[in-house]
Order: sequence, then C-alpha cells, then structure tokens
Amino acid sequence: MAKPDNPDVAQIGALLNTFTTALRNKDAKSAVSVYADDAVDFDLAPPLIIDSKRVRDPAYIQTWFDTWASPIESTPHGVTIRVGGDIAFAYGLQHMTGTKTDGEKVDLWFRATACLERRNGTWKVVHMHNSVPFTMDGSERALLDLKP
Amino acid sequence: MAKPDNPDVAQIGALLNTFTTALRNKDAKSAVSVYADDAVDFDLAPPLIIDSKRVRDPAYIQTWFDTWASPIESTPHGVTIRVGGDIAFAYGLQHMTGTKTDGEKVDLWFRATACLERRNGTWKVVHMHNSVPFTMDGSERALLDLKP
Repeated sequence: MAKPDNPDVAQIGALLNTFTTALRNKDAKSAVSVYADDAVDFDLAPPLIIDSKRVRDPAYIQTWFDTWASPIESTPHGVTIRVGGDIAFAYGLQHMTGTKTDGEKVDLWFRATACLERRNGTWKVVHMHNSVPFTMDGSERALLDLKP
Repeated sequence: MAKPDNPDVAQIGALLNTFTTALRNKDAKSAVSVYADDAVDFDLAPPLIIDSKRVRDPAYIQTWFDTWASPIESTPHGVTIRVGGDIAFAYGLQHMTGTKTDGEKVDLWFRATACLERRNGTWKVVHMHNSVPFTMDGSERALLDLKP
C-alpha cells in the first residue's frame, strides 16, 4: 500500500491534477498529454470504447470542450491511489460543475477509475473509466442526480 | 508489460474466472470471495459507491441473483491485464446474457475495470467499476443496446 509521501503517488497525483487543470482551461493539448499512446477510455458518452486514436486526438476532446460556456470544474473526492512497480491505479468520485453553451447548468457526480503505467520513466494514463449508474426499474435512465 | 505466461497474470485471470463462474452459478459466497475486505465497487446499479460492507455481503448480491431465472452469463472480451509488484488492473468488455424472473431477455454489453492487490500472497479485487455510457442529447438514457 503506497504511503502519502510515496514519490510515485505524488507524481500520479500531479498527472491527474494536470488533467483537472486542462479541463478547467479547456486545453485539449494538455488534456491528451496525460495519456499513453495506446490508452483506451470508457467514458460518460458513447461509444462503449474510446480508442487510442481518439483518446490522443486533441480535436476529439475539443469538440466536447466547445459545448461548455464556462470552465469545466471537475473536482476529485476521496481518491485512492495504489502503486506497484511501474503499475498503478486511482479511483474516486468527481464533481463536475459549469455551464454549457445552451445555458444548461451542470452539477454532476460521477465515478472515475484511472489505470496507469510508468513508460520510459514517466507515469501515463493507459485507461480511464468514467460513469454514472442507471436505474434497474426498466426505465433505463442514467442517474445524473446522485450525490455521495 | 506482463507477458501472457506471467504467473501473476494467470492467477488474476483465474480469480476473474472465479467471479464469472460464480455469476453463472448464482453462487453469492463464491462471488464475494474474490474481493478484499475493504473493496469498493462502482456498479451498473446505484448507489454511486457500493461500500465494502455490501460488496462483501453475500446477501447483497444474492438479492440481484434472485432476479434472474437463468444462469447469468457474463463473458469477457478483449481483457487487458497489467501487473506491477503487488498491484494490478484488468479492463475489457463484458457480454451479459440470460433471462430475468419477469421474462425479460438480457443481452447487454458493458465496460468492466478491476483493480487488484496481492494481500498475504493472494490476489484480491479491491475495486470493480462496471458501466454503460449514456446519451448526451438531454434524454439522459443509459445506452444498454450498444455493441462493440
């Protein structure tokens, strides 16, 4: 179990913070820089799998950034980070807030899991999984209003 | 990067297979046995976080098992497993099929990410994240009909 003063945990925390800052600034180039070349995402939006070509393409995430009028605030809560050798994972909740270009106010809690590898001495995200649960009552509704 | 003949990868594959078999047999005790005592799930159904008390409680998963008339087949597709020291992760798609007690036929593709730790010499799941994406068109519909 990694201690809080573990330098790998600190580096991974900094990498995840780079992503948070990139969302806030809607900086597509910085956002995709946290990923390894072969990273694969399971994201809030379809498709089932975001392949590495799209994950690493600034234009892909820019299309989403362009739907926001405000900065995109995504604040991590209760993140657990574990490291072994050149492999690590992190998971916790994210609280995303802001205003879309159509005026919609976003106030969304979702779950985030990141899997990381150290490549050539640098930690990179190889897999990110973001989601909300859905109702099991047959209405097939994504639960976008849950709070922790 | 772990090689296919890596013994840790083989052990983790066997652990995940134990879970698959437990679903098929609706064997709640076996299903919860793959988890560490402090495991936390982000699952298809709410709440946002399934805490360790529920993750490790056979009665909790049994309630879900009891909604199925058939065995629960959940077949992994394209699973990537990486190991570093006592830390590992695995991610890929799952194809879940079967029949619920109300006659509903389930044919669901979802995304699954597992985070693992070796505890006292034995690999255990410390975190599992299962999900489908949702529509971003304002209808807030969980996408239960996507195919890879």
